[in-house]
Amino acid sequence: MNRGRRTEHSRDKILQIGAELFTRNGYHATGVKEILTTCKVPKGSFYNFFESKEHFAVEILEHYRTIEFERWHTLAAQLQGNHFERMYQIIEKEIERFGNEQYACGCLLANLSGEVSQCSPLFSATIARSIRMVHDAITDDVLQCQQEGSLRRDLPADIVADVLLNHWQGALLRCKVENSTLPLQNHLTLLNSFKPSTEDIQ
Amino acid sequence: MNRGRRTEHSRDKILQIGAELFTRNGYHATGVKEILTTCKVPKGSFYNFFESKEHFAVEILEHYRTIEFERWHTLAAQLQGNHFERMYQIIEKEIERFGNEQYACGCLLANLSGEVSQCSPLFSATIARSIRMVHDAITDDVLQCQQEGSLRRDLPADIVADVLLNHWQGALLRCKVENSTLPLQNHLTLLNSFKPSTEDIQ
Repeated sequence: MNRGRRTEHSRDKILQIGAELFTRNGYHATGVKEILTTCKVPKGSFYNFFESKEHFAVEILEHYRTIEFERWHTLAAQLQGNHFERMYQIIEKEIERFGNEQYACGCLLANLSGEVSQCSPLFSATIARSIRMVHDAITDDVLQCQQEGSLRRDLPADIVADVLLNHWQGALLRCKVENSTLPLQNHLTLLNSFKPSTEDIQ
Repeated sequence: MNRGRRTEHSRDKILQIGAELFTRNGYHATGVKEILTTCKVPKGSFYNFFESKEHFAVEILEHYRTIEFERWHTLAAQLQGNHFERMYQIIEKEIERFGNEQYACGCLLANLSGEVSQCSPLFSATIARSIRMVHDAITDDVLQCQQEGSLRRDLPADIVADVLLNHWQGALLRCKVENSTLPLQNHLTLLNSFKPSTEDIQ
């Protein structure tokens, strides 16, 4: 491994471990020293890579959002059925994933929203941008479902997306508290409750 | 003011300021020194009153829950209409209150859920107990609405309560991020979406 690749590797590792520790223990409870000790990277490296702990956390949030979007798109492309059925299956797979891996940690975005969104304009803008992008993606999904007739059309797509996003974030918080993915199961109930009733279809 | 009352006054003031600072800035970012400086109480007092910062935060969570429950009961008793109409009005008044006072801070329970629920068994148990009690109170409300026919009956009351609780917590988080009470308005949309359809009533 040459020096450039080793440097890149160290930087990626710090980002990955930082994301894990911030998600599990929060921003303020995670020290830069703990991150570097965990990923066995020399202490001096951190400030070569990142301007400050705050800029580091912002980079993690952006990085995490990109990865999550790519993962959802890849997953959606592999599934069969109409748009609603694929949305439903993605949620089922997400619940399964949280159950296997990380339900005790919750979601980085939801956890940091509560802790640091008021701490600085940089945090606030980054978190707000991530949430807006997730909201817009869900709105697109809801619109496609409404167009194919699998979700009720009497509510605007962006309002349904708001409700779905709020519910998912709140359910993730409860999973962390209750050490269980049960609160996420309600997201499937909520999705089903937005199906058109037979009188809407007539 | 005698010494006993002065002591009681200092203790209450530390709890009140602690709750405000934890809600606004989070648990780890708020130091004991900052709390005592803000409420102008001698530094030595804190550990006379509280075993540790963690026990202090737990006491705040319990205190905050009791106050919130009393406030909701008092509010409900003053309102007119059937149970659904009173629930709806309480939510409207809560949204108004968050708009006037503290939407930038969010809710202590939601904020600390994300930050500290995995930090210790004491935090985890306290937050889980608070959430369970809120959930049970909402379940009672939903049951009363179902019995009077103002909410759909094809979903179990505790599932509807789960969805409402998750949504409210997630919406509060978004209010903090977006400096707006707009996400809470969606809670009224969600409540309305659980009204029985005309075919359920027939």
